[in-house]
Amino acid sequence: LVNPNKFRFADQDGVICITQNETSNGTQVSNKVIWQIRENNPNHLIAIDTTSSMAGVALNFESADLWLASVQKCFGLPAGLGLLICSPRAVERAKAMNKNSYYNSFVFMHEMMQKWQTSYTPNVLGVYLLMRVMEDADYIDDIQAKTIKRYFDWIEFFGETKGMNHLIKNEEAHSFTVIPVATNSEASIKKIKSEAKGEGLLLGEGYGELKATTFRIANFPAIKKSEIKKLQQFLKSFDR
Amino acid sequence: LVNPNKFRFADQDGVICITQNETSNGTQVSNKVIWQIRENNPNHLIAIDTTSSMAGVALNFESADLWLASVQKCFGLPAGLGLLICSPRAVERAKAMNKNSYYNSFVFMHEMMQKWQTSYTPNVLGVYLLMRVMEDADYIDDIQAKTIKRYFDWIEFFGETKGMNHLIKNEEAHSFTVIPVATNSEASIKKIKSEAKGEGLLLGEGYGELKATTFRIANFPAIKKSEIKKLQQFLKSFDR
Repeated sequence: LVNPNKFRFADQDGVICITQNETSNGTQVSNKVIWQIRENNPNHLIAIDTTSSMAGVALNFESADLWLASVQKCFGLPAGLGLLICSPRAVERAKAMNKNSYYNSFVFMHEMMQKWQTSYTPNVLGVYLLMRVMEDADYIDDIQAKTIKRYFDWIEFFGETKGMNHLIKNEEAHSFTVIPVATNSEASIKKIKSEAKGEGLLLGEGYGELKATTFRIANFPAIKKSEIKKLQQFLKSFDR
Repeated sequence: LVNPNKFRFADQDGVICITQNETSNGTQVSNKVIWQIRENNPNHLIAIDTTSSMAGVALNFESADLWLASVQKCFGLPAGLGLLICSPRAVERAKAMNKNSYYNSFVFMHEMMQKWQTSYTPNVLGVYLLMRVMEDADYIDDIQAKTIKRYFDWIEFFGETKGMNHLIKNEEAHSFTVIPVATNSEASIKKIKSEAKGEGLLLGEGYGELKATTFRIANFPAIKKSEIKKLQQFLKSFDR
């Protein structure tokens, strides 16, 4: 687990980056730890990667300055948009630095935003779909409750299987939105993945070194109850 | 008109950039002129901006090295994708320069392409819709024939109006896909634009200095015959 007391930095105006939800291995950093890092480093900007958790769990946006996310995870949309939530402090810092030589320079984007204009031609269909999905979305507390309940259903499920386990031993570090599963042999992983495909179930590949020995289950709000049931039945049939 | 003989450059490895179709004022550079500039400058890379013409007119891709376009014009799709067509020579030059410090560095994109991978998470819905539209598209020669016929219909139309004219006097310079229209007074432009909106017709604003005195008509393949008819009837009712 991340120990926030180990992250005290002397530098006056640095940026601390934290991956709140690590998609590759299914771990997360809690809101509480992020808040403690914030308190221990009052002069830093803190940037949080929530690619695979924003809109699936409740985040405390006051505890950091920059929040990054993607729409193809918990927002339930096709890939094609990135999201960036900024604190007033981050905006001020960007203005003071005034670096304008990048493509998608933040200063330029912010200037255009003030005029209700886009900096470049945007992905209009993606923006429109995001609006529609957000108009229909439940409050984040309710979404989070559903996410966490489903996460515990999965924990219970893998508690009952013989040859499959959550990859991460320390439950406190578990991500709620990404569930990495290890089995007792490489051969069974291969077979599970290929047969799942035949059933119309696309299991997330394990990442990097973990590719051969794990697969990953997305626990995103847009997934249907019936889809979870189907996947559990399929996995059960493999559990010998 | 662009005189290709005026564009002979001594520099060995420069890049010549040409806007083939100028969306702002409805002019174009012909395939023939681009070909002549190619012949006069054999050592240069030539880059062509065809944002508002690719997929609406036939371009001679052998006459230049880089072709840029957008999907929200002649491809008939919502904005959100840019297209880049590259010659083998452009690829070689990029590899030789090997500049990798940009976001969307071409060298990196090309490396990933070779592995059938994306460099960053793409706009997947846009890519999919582009595929679907391209699968259904006619051959470009047929599309071009339709574009040119409709362009001449518009020329005929404005030949018969009293107070509206094609903005550009020199017909040889006319774009086939963007038709800029000037009227005899600023007041009538304002009225036309606002009443068009009421009829569900969104007229393209004139660009920059031309905003107050012109509007623009898109002559893109996806526009329906009935839509053109409706617009012509609307404009006729204004032509006193």
